[in-house]
Amino acid sequence: MKEKELINTIKSLLNSEYIGDDCAYLKDLEIVITQDSLVEDIHFSLKYTNAYQLGWKSVMVNISDICASGAKPEYLTVALSIPKYINSDFIKDFYKGAKDASKDVKIVGGDITGADKLYISIAAIGSTKGRKISSRANAKDGYKIIVSGEHGNSATGLKILKSEIDLKKDNDFFIKSHLMPQAKINFSKEIAMNIQCDYAMMDTSDGLADALVQIANSSNVKLKIDFDKIPHNKNVDMETVLYGGEDYELVAVVPESILSKISGYTIIGEAVSGKASVEINGQIIKNIENKIFNHFEENNEN
Amino acid sequence: MKEKELINTIKSLLNSEYIGDDCAYLKDLEIVITQDSLVEDIHFSLKYTNAYQLGWKSVMVNISDICASGAKPEYLTVALSIPKYINSDFIKDFYKGAKDASKDVKIVGGDITGADKLYISIAAIGSTKGRKISSRANAKDGYKIIVSGEHGNSATGLKILKSEIDLKKDNDFFIKSHLMPQAKINFSKEIAMNIQCDYAMMDTSDGLADALVQIANSSNVKLKIDFDKIPHNKNVDMETVLYGGEDYELVAVVPESILSKISGYTIIGEAVSGKASVEINGQIIKNIENKIFNHFEENNEN
Repeated sequence: MKEKELINTIKSLLNSEYIGDDCAYLKDLEIVITQDSLVEDIHFSLKYTNAYQLGWKSVMVNISDICASGAKPEYLTVALSIPKYINSDFIKDFYKGAKDASKDVKIVGGDITGADKLYISIAAIGSTKGRKISSRANAKDGYKIIVSGEHGNSATGLKILKSEIDLKKDNDFFIKSHLMPQAKINFSKEIAMNIQCDYAMMDTSDGLADALVQIANSSNVKLKIDFDKIPHNKNVDMETVLYGGEDYELVAVVPESILSKISGYTIIGEAVSGKASVEINGQIIKNIENKIFNHFEENNEN
Repeated sequence: MKEKELINTIKSLLNSEYIGDDCAYLKDLEIVITQDSLVEDIHFSLKYTNAYQLGWKSVMVNISDICASGAKPEYLTVALSIPKYINSDFIKDFYKGAKDASKDVKIVGGDITGADKLYISIAAIGSTKGRKISSRANAKDGYKIIVSGEHGNSATGLKILKSEIDLKKDNDFFIKSHLMPQAKINFSKEIAMNIQCDYAMMDTSDGLADALVQIANSSNVKLKIDFDKIPHNKNVDMETVLYGGEDYELVAVVPESILSKISGYTIIGEAVSGKASVEINGQIIKNIENKIFNHFEENNEN
């Protein structure tokens, strides 16, 4: 069973209106909450990351989910399950990285247990006060599609780490993109504090194409993309720009009227009426599940 | 390094005033948050629990932490990391148990990934509106020590499951205490909604004696206990009543004046001035770390 099918099954079982976006929006408490787990040898390998970088990325992944909602990242709890081969220096370095990544976001608790492999689960809370919260179901035809930065750099960094490619003097740049991503806090803030109407926003943790397909399907709109408009490094091929994950950029589908009030965006296309789909340079994206890296499927054939 | 030493190291590294209680109290958002992880073959064995019971207990453990703070349990996120030998029926049954345990508490999100073993990490949010929030540092001499129910039943159930003992017709009662505990929501609510002054409250997840020692040390008071007052089943020995964990009862140290406003409690002793310690029937508890089941130490000798 694929991850998304399983999530749909759980959603209908729980009869929950909250599950669907990266964050759950708890209106009565004026917060959003998200939780993400990183599992050794599934989401990261200790061959490629050190403890500091791992702490940094684990925190940033969750801050990015809060940014995708438009909320202000405020608090984190960090649960670590630690195998015997992890020593206390590793744990200290992990927390140093976590703390440096969090900056003004406070780490307020969590849990430490034993385990066979290293397992990290982080919950993040954002405040919705003074912010308009996004939903992937809120794109409307006529809206512009904007992104916060370059796509494909993180996946390229992973290829370099795995020695699949060698970009010589550029290697360090791409490796840093993979190991120490930066959540787009300001991009999120400018939109969420200035926009008045409903809008869609996601981060590109599973790749830009996946985020676009999620928004198109949830909003029932067609998203038309001009590939050449997508910011990307000249060393990165089209496949990696579209399907490489973990850049933690933001993609938003917003009314044109907001654009004069925000900065640091690139328009890559627009939402039009039509069958829910993503069209890139005139070609409809199909079978995206087979193209993105599906952690769950790889590990579970049930 | 022992779990508690490591937590102290992390606490000083993060310079966080929040870490210390089971929940972090986020005053600006009027919520508490907690996160707990359950790891296969560390915290549970699939030999002894089915999926429904595991879902139930995983949720209840976190609701109990919220109850220990005095807040109203409101929302949960559930992150599962699933090995190949877990099928989709198991996951559905897990969520059925989780849903039945949550009742009015809503499961609003989470994460699903692959893993080598089953990992469950749950974050829980409680609302502090109209409640006075506890801290283990808030016991004061002259306060009464009260508990919500029987101690030692869960650990006795685990002994039965492991075939270490056989209590015949009583086996089912103890096994249910172990596999499907019930958080003490009303006990918590009555205290937190009626009390005006600072007080201490913890759940007994690591055993009654551990909770008492934590409160005594954090509050710098002596807690004098009359063992015979501690509610316990006649089949359960003194050692198990004091050190057996996972009953998820509550222990609170409160002023006598509150007692007329609450129900369902048993007074087991009182806080007096003196060196931070727990005295049971005239004897000071020592070396508690060696008596309670320390998950972390067992798995990690660093």
